[in-house]
Amino acid sequence: MNNFEYHNPVRVVFGKGTIARIAELIDPSEKILLLYGGGSIKKNGVYNQVMAALKGRDVREFGGIEPNPRYETCMKAVEVVKRDGVDFLLSVGGGSVLDGAKFIAAAARCKADDPWDILTGQYTPKTAVPLGAILTLPATGSEMNCFAVISRDSTGEKLAFGNPCVYPVFSILDPETTYTLPAKQLRNGLVDAFVHVMEQYATYSVNTPLQDRQAEAVVRTLIEIAPDVLEKKNDYDSRANFMWTATHALNGIISCGVVEDWTTHMIGHELTAFFGLDHAETLAIVLPAVWQHQFDRKKEKLAQLARRVWHVVEGDVNAQARAAIDKTVSFFHSVGMPTRLGDYHITESRLTPVVERFRQRGTVLGEHQAVKADQIAEILSLCL
Amino acid sequence: MNNFEYHNPVRVVFGKGTIARIAELIDPSEKILLLYGGGSIKKNGVYNQVMAALKGRDVREFGGIEPNPRYETCMKAVEVVKRDGVDFLLSVGGGSVLDGAKFIAAAARCKADDPWDILTGQYTPKTAVPLGAILTLPATGSEMNCFAVISRDSTGEKLAFGNPCVYPVFSILDPETTYTLPAKQLRNGLVDAFVHVMEQYATYSVNTPLQDRQAEAVVRTLIEIAPDVLEKKNDYDSRANFMWTATHALNGIISCGVVEDWTTHMIGHELTAFFGLDHAETLAIVLPAVWQHQFDRKKEKLAQLARRVWHVVEGDVNAQARAAIDKTVSFFHSVGMPTRLGDYHITESRLTPVVERFRQRGTVLGEHQAVKADQIAEILSLCL
Repeated sequence: MNNFEYHNPVRVVFGKGTIARIAELIDPSEKILLLYGGGSIKKNGVYNQVMAALKGRDVREFGGIEPNPRYETCMKAVEVVKRDGVDFLLSVGGGSVLDGAKFIAAAARCKADDPWDILTGQYTPKTAVPLGAILTLPATGSEMNCFAVISRDSTGEKLAFGNPCVYPVFSILDPETTYTLPAKQLRNGLVDAFVHVMEQYATYSVNTPLQDRQAEAVVRTLIEIAPDVLEKKNDYDSRANFMWTATHALNGIISCGVVEDWTTHMIGHELTAFFGLDHAETLAIVLPAVWQHQFDRKKEKLAQLARRVWHVVEGDVNAQARAAIDKTVSFFHSVGMPTRLGDYHITESRLTPVVERFRQRGTVLGEHQAVKADQIAEILSLCL
Repeated sequence: MNNFEYHNPVRVVFGKGTIARIAELIDPSEKILLLYGGGSIKKNGVYNQVMAALKGRDVREFGGIEPNPRYETCMKAVEVVKRDGVDFLLSVGGGSVLDGAKFIAAAARCKADDPWDILTGQYTPKTAVPLGAILTLPATGSEMNCFAVISRDSTGEKLAFGNPCVYPVFSILDPETTYTLPAKQLRNGLVDAFVHVMEQYATYSVNTPLQDRQAEAVVRTLIEIAPDVLEKKNDYDSRANFMWTATHALNGIISCGVVEDWTTHMIGHELTAFFGLDHAETLAIVLPAVWQHQFDRKKEKLAQLARRVWHVVEGDVNAQARAAIDKTVSFFHSVGMPTRLGDYHITESRLTPVVERFRQRGTVLGEHQAVKADQIAEILSLCL
């Protein structure tokens, strides 16, 4: 096991009727900025629950934070925070709104000339506006981690940052808020959570039997509950299990002391930046290609995945590892998720600028630092 | 899944050479009281590592905290904390020293006339002296929770309390500190961790597939690593896996949203209080008896345990659940742990005052609130 540090101070409040708890979780004296996305919270009753709980408080609103939250939008919210002296950010929505809130929280206290430096790594935040979350979409794990991904229109970039000062003070997870989610977002959430686990698992072993089993626990549960999540609209149990399982896919527990990859995410972010695909759509395309390309380096863990999650018993390590790739693709298809660039009519010629961007940045990816621009080009060819 | 709240702010620093990190984790201005047990830390080099890291700091010492830490001893440390204006408690040792430190931390800020009220529940701490831990014995999980168990000589009682204000600020887990542990303490730690999981698992299902698998991950790993833990003296990997697995047995993750029991612990505490058995020794005796006595209420989860952990495939639910009890007893025996009161020459007549104490307290135990003094008497008979 590798040395590690684990510190996750998020207070998770989970279950039916828990939105009302914000009344005690936010200090009555604080000036609150409510952040949300496209307005679905005003249709599904969540907004009303929030405002009822905050009755009499100083609350202002900032809506319109996009999926793949845009830097330009976030900076407008930063202006509001600074102008009005906002003390607390309350994110109500999915991982995109929450990622936006994390960036806004850090940018509002940022001393660099351009808060974009937080995302390029040129500026490290030391403090942020305190934030809390009401999660309505199980997928990203953002509710129990300190990471955020932000896109910038003017440059077509999509970059991530992580900093302990943007851990939510609390995250409220009420599974009933997911009842009105469209099928596409449920599908995306299942795939996103699945791939999060794999980025922390499908590398090479450093003798971490507990963490391996904890990771397998997450993906086995995702696979098991997926049909009910997609088919049963108002089923509390499957939504509750989905919500808590997606949180565990990226709350730091399964990455303690293990070797991580994140190649799929880094390539996927660019596919979103260039072609506008949903985040999860890019992951379902790239993950199987990364596994094929890095097969010899990953096959031991992939074979273990096949044996433990899909009970594959026949064949040698190579055959079992190939089975893991096939079973993963089948799982993605079973939830209605395409796994090819061709499914989105993206052809080879359009990939050149994607590879060029990685080449210009001098990107080096993967647990062996073996995936550079040339390898990314090969991986993308496997995605066609 | 039941509603739940999860908030665990402990900073875990895990791995080789991490003791030196206390230099940055404790503010240089703070007056430190170093708490330890019987002095093994002065023989195995841990004390020297601690003092080297704290060179130049204001450090005083309080040694002699017992296994099953005594109220009387802890109150002497409380006097030192108050007299010298100690700002920070540093616990160096196993779960007993740390449990003592937690009680000392709360008692030193306690406004009740008698800090024992913290343990009887008549006083709820609002604040405590900040504390950190260097763990040298994987077993209790105290390093990543806010619970403590304290014994009182004058009354022969052993009581537990839990309060968020006694979460360690940090816990340092360096597996190399366990190399000098005697076999008995390793055995005790394996059993203690195993039973912790079972108190949170072997009840009845409220549809928590992730938590079930996370719990199974812990016990499967314990069973898998036990031979190496006991036989390989300086094997880093097995000790590292033991340390992290024991932490996960009682850090609150596997209890999120599930139904818990704790009957075995409550009865076991009294067996320690009356007969001086080690904590883990009592658990290994009581757990199988509780399962036999509450068989019909627990058999579904026990059968799942048998299928998933020991791959039992034959028989109906009753047969599989009985297999889980047999396999558990075999596991205890395999690590050298007795499972009968008779192994300690404790006969039926000596159990009467134990039952009487439960009767006087009006104790009600178990996930169905179905275990009272009469049932405890029956369970104890099954332990003979």
